[in-house]
Amino acid sequence: MKKDLDVLLQAHNLDALLVTGPAQHNPAMVYLTGGAYLSSAELIKKRGTAPLLFYHPMERDGAASTGLKTRDLNDYHLSALIKEENGNQIKALAIRYRRMLADLGLNSGRIAVYGQQDAGTAYAILSELQKLMPEMTLVGEMEDSILMQAMMTKDESEVARIRHMGQITVEVVAEVADFLTSQRVRNETLIKPDGEPLTIADVKRRINLWLAERGAENPQGTIFAIGRDGAVPHNPGSPGNVLKLGQTIVFDISPCEAGGGYYYDFTRTWCLGYATEEAQVVYQDVFTVYNQIVSELRVNTLCRQYQQRVCEMFEARNHPTIQSNPRTQEGYVHGLGHGVGLFIHERPSFAITSGDTDRLLPGVVTTIEPGLYYPERGLGVRLENTFWVRPDGQMEILAEFPLDLVLPVN
Amino acid sequence: MKKDLDVLLQAHNLDALLVTGPAQHNPAMVYLTGGAYLSSAELIKKRGTAPLLFYHPMERDGAASTGLKTRDLNDYHLSALIKEENGNQIKALAIRYRRMLADLGLNSGRIAVYGQQDAGTAYAILSELQKLMPEMTLVGEMEDSILMQAMMTKDESEVARIRHMGQITVEVVAEVADFLTSQRVRNETLIKPDGEPLTIADVKRRINLWLAERGAENPQGTIFAIGRDGAVPHNPGSPGNVLKLGQTIVFDISPCEAGGGYYYDFTRTWCLGYATEEAQVVYQDVFTVYNQIVSELRVNTLCRQYQQRVCEMFEARNHPTIQSNPRTQEGYVHGLGHGVGLFIHERPSFAITSGDTDRLLPGVVTTIEPGLYYPERGLGVRLENTFWVRPDGQMEILAEFPLDLVLPVN
Repeated sequence: MKKDLDVLLQAHNLDALLVTGPAQHNPAMVYLTGGAYLSSAELIKKRGTAPLLFYHPMERDGAASTGLKTRDLNDYHLSALIKEENGNQIKALAIRYRRMLADLGLNSGRIAVYGQQDAGTAYAILSELQKLMPEMTLVGEMEDSILMQAMMTKDESEVARIRHMGQITVEVVAEVADFLTSQRVRNETLIKPDGEPLTIADVKRRINLWLAERGAENPQGTIFAIGRDGAVPHNPGSPGNVLKLGQTIVFDISPCEAGGGYYYDFTRTWCLGYATEEAQVVYQDVFTVYNQIVSELRVNTLCRQYQQRVCEMFEARNHPTIQSNPRTQEGYVHGLGHGVGLFIHERPSFAITSGDTDRLLPGVVTTIEPGLYYPERGLGVRLENTFWVRPDGQMEILAEFPLDLVLPVN
Repeated sequence: MKKDLDVLLQAHNLDALLVTGPAQHNPAMVYLTGGAYLSSAELIKKRGTAPLLFYHPMERDGAASTGLKTRDLNDYHLSALIKEENGNQIKALAIRYRRMLADLGLNSGRIAVYGQQDAGTAYAILSELQKLMPEMTLVGEMEDSILMQAMMTKDESEVARIRHMGQITVEVVAEVADFLTSQRVRNETLIKPDGEPLTIADVKRRINLWLAERGAENPQGTIFAIGRDGAVPHNPGSPGNVLKLGQTIVFDISPCEAGGGYYYDFTRTWCLGYATEEAQVVYQDVFTVYNQIVSELRVNTLCRQYQQRVCEMFEARNHPTIQSNPRTQEGYVHGLGHGVGLFIHERPSFAITSGDTDRLLPGVVTTIEPGLYYPERGLGVRLENTFWVRPDGQMEILAEFPLDLVLPVN
C-alpha cells in the first residue's frame, strides 16, 4: 500500500523516487499526486519525507490541487541551461534533474525512476544524469519495482474507486444486454430499426456512450468479438461483423476513471438466442473451472498455484493448456488473472514460469478469468470477475453480474 | 512525412528505428503500424526496408491487421531467457532485443529508440542492451528526433484524419453553445430544468458524451474555465463552478481518434449574455493579434518569428509578455502555437529561446493560439484554430467556427 512506500524504500536500499510525466494516464504520477491536470511534471519523494512536485507555471493551479508541496520548474531556468549547453536539451534536462535532486540533499545514494515517457528520451536523459552524478545510482525496475509492489495492495479508498468503476461497468453491460435482447431478428441476425443488420461497431459506439454518460473513459477499447474473433483472446472484434444468433461473443470491458485513474476489468461470454451444443460444452467447462477456482481462493496463497490448478482442471477435461504445450493457440492459452489498479495489468502475477512469488495478500485486487479458445471451431469463451482480498481475508467480487451464456432474443 | 523516414535515417546516420509499447495511445507505434489492438509490441524498421512487427500470440490478429510483416515474440522464448538469467527480466529482455536485432542483421551501427514506456524500465533495459552490444549505439532523442521531424509534416491521409477530428470538435462546440444559450437564467446564473445552477462538471459531462457519440476520445480532458480559472492557461476549470453571465470562459477542447490517434486542438473564449468593458478590451486585443498574425502566416517562414511578432504586438498594446519578462504570469504567457498530430503537442515549435529552426513547411499542421491572462482581474482570453500549411503554400483552418465573444442567452 501507498503508506508502505517508506518501508519499501528502506527495504530496497533506495533513497528516493523520481517520477516524471503527466498526472493523467500515467499511473506512477497519478499514484503519488492523486491525479491532476498536469501535462508534464516531475516529482521527487525522498525516503521519510513527503513528495515534492515540480510544475510548469501554466499548471500551477493543477499542482496546487494535489495538496503536495510544490516548486516552480521555472526556478531551474531550463532555457538558460539549454543555451549554455549549446542547444543540447538532453544535457540541460539532466543538469536540471541534478539541481532538483541537490536541492533535496540528494547527491548520492540510489534513486528509482518511474513514469511514462518516450523510451529513447528516458534512456538519453537518465544516462546523461548518471554520468553527471557518478555517486548516485539510478535504478530502473520492472514488475519487481517498489512502486508496483506498493500498488499491488490497495487501501480502502482505492478499492472504493475500483468498486465504483465496477458499478459503472455492470450498468453498461446491463445496457448492452438490454439493447441486444430488444433488437429484431431476421435470418438469425440482429436487425436495427432501419432494417440494416446491427454491427459490432454499432454496439461499441453505444458502449462508449454509456461509459461517457457515467464519467468513465475507455482508453483500452472494448473486446466485443463474435465467433472466430472471440477465439483469439485479444482480438477486439471486427467492426463490420453482424450479430448472428448462436455464436459465442466474448465481451471484455475495462473502463477507467476519467483522466486515467483506476480501472475495472470484466468479461462475459454470450450467445444470442441459443447456444450450440459445442458452445455449451466449452462454456460449461469454463464455468465449472471458474467456480471451482473461486471457491478455492484463500488469502496469502501463492497466485501461481491457481494457474497450475486451472491448467490441471482444463487438462483433466481434455483441453490443451500452456502448461502442456507452451505454444498452444487452442484451449487455455493465457494466465488466470492479474492485478487491477491504475494499470489495467499489474501485480499480482499468476504466471507459473517466471518464478513469481506473488500472493493473494489482503488488499490485492485481481481478476480471475479462465477461458477456452478454439479458433478453428470459431469458438471462444472467457469469464472474468475482479476480486478484492478483503482485510478480513474474504474474497469479494467488486461488481456482480450473472454469468449466463444465453441472452434470449425476441 | 512518413515517406521521408529512410532519407531521415540516412541523414542522421541511423541504421534502424526500434519502437516499443502498445499500438494505442502511443504515437510512435501508431505512426508506424497505423494503430491496432496491440497492448504490447515491438517494431524494428531497418533503413531501406519495411518495418517488422513483433507481437504476442494472443494479439496475432491485431498484428495481422496492420498489414506489416510480423513475427511471433514467442519465437524468442522470453520465459526460458528469464530462467537462464535467474529471474533477471531486464537482462532477459535486453538479450531478446539483441536477438531480434541480430535476426535483422543489426549487430552494429546506430539505432534510435521510441515508444511510451516506464522511464526507469526503459533506462534499465536499454542500458543493459547497450552493454550487451558495444558495437551498437542506442540513440535517444527529444524534439530533434527523426520521428518528430517526420511527423512534423503530414501527408493528405493524415490531414484528412485531423480534419475529421476538427469537424467533430466544432460540432461538439456548437452543441455546447446551443446548450448554454438555451438554459434559463436566474440571478445572472444559468439554471438547469431542475432549478439547480448548471456547473462546469455538467458541461464537461455533456462534452464527453457528445464526443463519444461521434467516436472521439478525450484523454487530455477539456478546459472549461470561468473567470479567474481561465486566467491560468492550463487550469481546466473547477467542477463545481456555476456559469455566471458576463465572465470570460476559456473553452479549450482537444479530442483524439478512438484508440489514441490524431488530435485536433481548438479554443474559444465566451462571455454568457454580455461581456464587461474590461473583457471586451482584452478580447479585442487577442482578436486583433490573432487576425493580424494569421494574415501574416507564410509558407516556409521560421515559426519563432511569429512568436516574436506576437510579443511585439501585445507589448505595443501595453500587455506584459514572456519576451519582456520571462517569468510573467500576466499578459501573454505562452507560445503562439504547436504542431498537432498523434501528439497533442508536437513540432513545429514556436519557442524563441531554444533556438528552434522549425518553419511553416508544406504539410505542417499547427495551432495558432494567442491569449491574454489576468488572474487578479479574473479574466483570461485565448483564441485558437488549427491550420494546415497546404502543398500549395496556402494556410487553411481545418475546422471553421465563429470567434465571437458573447453568447446571447434568453
